[in-house]
Amino acid sequence: LQVRLLGTAAGGGFPQWNCRCAGCEKARQTPSLAIPRTQSSVAISADSKNWFLLNVSPDIRHQIAAFPDLLPPPSSVRGSALQGILITNADLDHTLGLFILREGNPLSVHAPSSVREALSEGIKLSAVLDAYSGIRWHEPPHQLQPLLDSNGSPSGLLLQAFGVPGKMPRYYVSPPAPSGAQAVGYRLVDEKTGGKLVFIPDIASFDGSALEQMKDCDLLLLDGTFWSENEMKESGAGTLTATQMAHVVIGGPRGSLAQIKNLPAKRKIYLHINNTNPILVEGSPEQMEVKAAGIEVGHDGVEIAI
Amino acid sequence: LQVRLLGTAAGGGFPQWNCRCAGCEKARQTPSLAIPRTQSSVAISADSKNWFLLNVSPDIRHQIAAFPDLLPPPSSVRGSALQGILITNADLDHTLGLFILREGNPLSVHAPSSVREALSEGIKLSAVLDAYSGIRWHEPPHQLQPLLDSNGSPSGLLLQAFGVPGKMPRYYVSPPAPSGAQAVGYRLVDEKTGGKLVFIPDIASFDGSALEQMKDCDLLLLDGTFWSENEMKESGAGTLTATQMAHVVIGGPRGSLAQIKNLPAKRKIYLHINNTNPILVEGSPEQMEVKAAGIEVGHDGVEIAI
Repeated sequence: LQVRLLGTAAGGGFPQWNCRCAGCEKARQTPSLAIPRTQSSVAISADSKNWFLLNVSPDIRHQIAAFPDLLPPPSSVRGSALQGILITNADLDHTLGLFILREGNPLSVHAPSSVREALSEGIKLSAVLDAYSGIRWHEPPHQLQPLLDSNGSPSGLLLQAFGVPGKMPRYYVSPPAPSGAQAVGYRLVDEKTGGKLVFIPDIASFDGSALEQMKDCDLLLLDGTFWSENEMKESGAGTLTATQMAHVVIGGPRGSLAQIKNLPAKRKIYLHINNTNPILVEGSPEQMEVKAAGIEVGHDGVEIAI
Repeated sequence: LQVRLLGTAAGGGFPQWNCRCAGCEKARQTPSLAIPRTQSSVAISADSKNWFLLNVSPDIRHQIAAFPDLLPPPSSVRGSALQGILITNADLDHTLGLFILREGNPLSVHAPSSVREALSEGIKLSAVLDAYSGIRWHEPPHQLQPLLDSNGSPSGLLLQAFGVPGKMPRYYVSPPAPSGAQAVGYRLVDEKTGGKLVFIPDIASFDGSALEQMKDCDLLLLDGTFWSENEMKESGAGTLTATQMAHVVIGGPRGSLAQIKNLPAKRKIYLHINNTNPILVEGSPEQMEVKAAGIEVGHDGVEIAI
């Protein structure tokens, strides 16, 4: 299973266009000390030819330019190596890239029904894309099943979705909330190598079933949005808490770091990191604490084979 | 009047993510011979502190990073130098950036009612932004009037909108078409210097009134989407004609080049250039023909003071 981190920042990216918090300023002035990052998205492939995206950020045009494996096959004037897109929740930073991919063939999008509803009703995604590329929706399976490419052929990957604590996006909160999980994580297994990826870029709190998923994988890509509950307020960048934004924090006795540091996965990487999070600053105490626990702070361009 | 070309390519940018046409391949392999360009947007200011955008592309995050004048004032943790955004039509490449600017203060957006309707109904822009920054709509005047900043103070610029032949976006074609112009151009005048800019990034055909506007300016920024009517088909990149996409072509006896080459403006620059347009290739016969007529092929980062 080939994995490429295309983008590792939360919505807004790092640095963010309208922010001069300490981290954003450092990223502009001395990027070696606070590496700039585009918004969260991951590319995966069983054969390094046919690729799937895990979420698709508004930076996708620049992310594809930075990773030519995602370009069309050399023989075709127009085309794409993208076989499908898996969405974990309907947040704009995970989904606006779908509009940007409108110029190509019909998009094959895997997402739970709640996400499909939020996107179709909240930003009219299906109706808009039908005027351009078209979109084909797929309900991801709750048990491991072959993930098919855009032609319906096996991709060499098995896919399973599992619900995680989350919330509907701010732009679509009309009651009643749709049935089914409002956010999911994905398990992907390479049929040949047996390599197992668990992808959870957004999780509001650790429940037992999510932890069970995290226990059984080779590579864990996990929500690293915030270090602490009041980080937005303390940095002067906002008023919402981590809880209000439905992200578990990394730090502290009940944070995610304490809960994942002893899990057996070979590699554990934080991504979807907000620009206010001190782990983005190289050598900060918070980053050192993460690394001392054997966990990585994701950055754009990291490639992993499992 | 300070003018900065933030992006000069049509929708999809140059090179485009799913394209291997001759121009896109050259832009990837030897960018000095075919300069990469982001999607069309222009920043203008009377004082080099308070800026307005003319259209806002999905590349806006990267365009702001490339032009630090648009960052927040040094003293503020969160903020922006952007005082307003002027939209010429509701095409996605002109407007998706509004979603990306959702993290800041309420956006002050100037657009004719037809554009507002397409965006509000077609992609629910107003409802979505109301869940984040908020949005304040302004109907642009048909006679020169002071352009106000986001606090309602004079910007030092005068603004006038004028209808141009155009069409509703593909995603919002429900009959009946809204009343009023479906696309506009903008005239901007610096109150101190008297410098006059005419901005028409999309025009389906030259009518008398648009030509009158073009005759009376110091700087003309004009639709350079296509060189020829069947360019998309001939390059293998699509099936629509320039006419079907509502863009006048540059080349030929009835093209825009023949019509603007004798206009008195000091500088005339093509922008919103599609990736299939041969003027993007340095030294191509088509680019040479444009330059020989005293017209410029726009590229990102060009700055002009008038």
